[in-house]
Amino acid sequence: MSSENAIGVFDSGLGGLTAVKEFLRVLPHEKIIYFGDTGRVPYGTRSRDTIKKYAVQDAGFLLRHKVKMVVAACGTVSSVAGELLREQLPVPYTGVVNPTAYTAVRVTRNKRVGVIGTAATVNSHSYRLRLNKLDPTIQVFEQACPLFVPLVENGIINHHDIITMSVVARYLSPLRENGVDTLILGCTHFPLLREAVSDFMGKGVRLIDSGLETAVYAAKVLEREHLLSRRYETPQPEFFVSDTPDGFKSVAGLFLGRDMEHAVTQIDIEAY
Amino acid sequence: MSSENAIGVFDSGLGGLTAVKEFLRVLPHEKIIYFGDTGRVPYGTRSRDTIKKYAVQDAGFLLRHKVKMVVAACGTVSSVAGELLREQLPVPYTGVVNPTAYTAVRVTRNKRVGVIGTAATVNSHSYRLRLNKLDPTIQVFEQACPLFVPLVENGIINHHDIITMSVVARYLSPLRENGVDTLILGCTHFPLLREAVSDFMGKGVRLIDSGLETAVYAAKVLEREHLLSRRYETPQPEFFVSDTPDGFKSVAGLFLGRDMEHAVTQIDIEAY
Repeated sequence: MSSENAIGVFDSGLGGLTAVKEFLRVLPHEKIIYFGDTGRVPYGTRSRDTIKKYAVQDAGFLLRHKVKMVVAACGTVSSVAGELLREQLPVPYTGVVNPTAYTAVRVTRNKRVGVIGTAATVNSHSYRLRLNKLDPTIQVFEQACPLFVPLVENGIINHHDIITMSVVARYLSPLRENGVDTLILGCTHFPLLREAVSDFMGKGVRLIDSGLETAVYAAKVLEREHLLSRRYETPQPEFFVSDTPDGFKSVAGLFLGRDMEHAVTQIDIEAY
Repeated sequence: MSSENAIGVFDSGLGGLTAVKEFLRVLPHEKIIYFGDTGRVPYGTRSRDTIKKYAVQDAGFLLRHKVKMVVAACGTVSSVAGELLREQLPVPYTGVVNPTAYTAVRVTRNKRVGVIGTAATVNSHSYRLRLNKLDPTIQVFEQACPLFVPLVENGIINHHDIITMSVVARYLSPLRENGVDTLILGCTHFPLLREAVSDFMGKGVRLIDSGLETAVYAAKVLEREHLLSRRYETPQPEFFVSDTPDGFKSVAGLFLGRDMEHAVTQIDIEAY
């Protein structure tokens, strides 16, 4: 495996681009190949077996590009199919759950940690299990926020918007009442609601962004495996999707936080 | 074709069950076979080509059950793939657009008609085109309501709920300001928001439920084709889905407006 091979990142759709944004910042000399399964999004409401099948196909597509590492930038996949991928893949794998849980355990002072995500992520209890494996004394408060993804995808994210803030209040009131001092944003869409969530939870609550923690963790893994790129330049990322790429640029720009000037290619994911 | 064969109804997911509810009321002696494409829902955000491909597969599955009529109980499919299905299918076909448009033209007094639906339905302008074909003097005001489906699917539909009502107000204010006296609920999920929508729009605005109009229209087509059932009993409907049927009963009960005591079978829709 060459250290100049790409890092493969995939997500059920385009939300994982918030993680790519952090990868480009933390690992600027790495080539990133991204696959967004826009033809089969969302995964969060599907059955566990379906999610596993899709995750294996997604990783299979990235392996064809000889990636040196596979990253599931998707709370749902990491929660439901993480163990399966770690066992089956011939290259290092990380999801978003483990790196994020490590950081939450390190930063919490009162040992009360909140976790928000899709229904599938929360119902899997993946974050709670991992947090309690790292520190059994931590109290974990989980909350599914199924309306957050549609809010983000429809751009209703402003912290002065009554819709945004009443949805935020509905979901997060129990966490605030339970006095968590650390809150895991356990879905790649959620960083776009960071300001609204932070306004509601208060400055004393530390928000943990799963995309950033995963990029930092991936850097450590690549260093340990002597797989960090030795490039000086910043390679262009490559993007693949499974539905037609109409409208990809505007949505991708939203998640990446910058204008998209990269080509995007449609593939048939069922073939992998 | 025997008049005792079933009517085949399909939708991108379970929303079409609101139409099935009306079919069971309007045509109590007909056997209904329903397919909900829960493995590939939602269609509303997918490309036109993808929606057409899926619609042909869905209808193909129903034809294997020798249905005497195919109904697309889905605003998106009716809008994007309706012509294709009407041309290709060997049995009578109806979507939800035509029957609903007929009724709206009949009931509007001020000739100002509002249409709400998914982004795909509204962007196709299918309702506007059909309304203006029936009566070129009608002014049509279209509004995509992409958050309505997630609201319904998460049960946030109460007309006293601040989230429900602030989303309703955001989308429907332009229609109210434009003085429509008739509003087409152009998505099968929307009848569950009828009370909230009616509260906001006022008693003077007539809401047209696409599922009910489609059931009434289907009855007329079957009568004209001498295909109405001559049964006396009420046959049990049959339900098929493309993802695992976990949780089907509770969601189906919500849309059908009654407890589900029917079996549901999972099929591989990609095989059709």
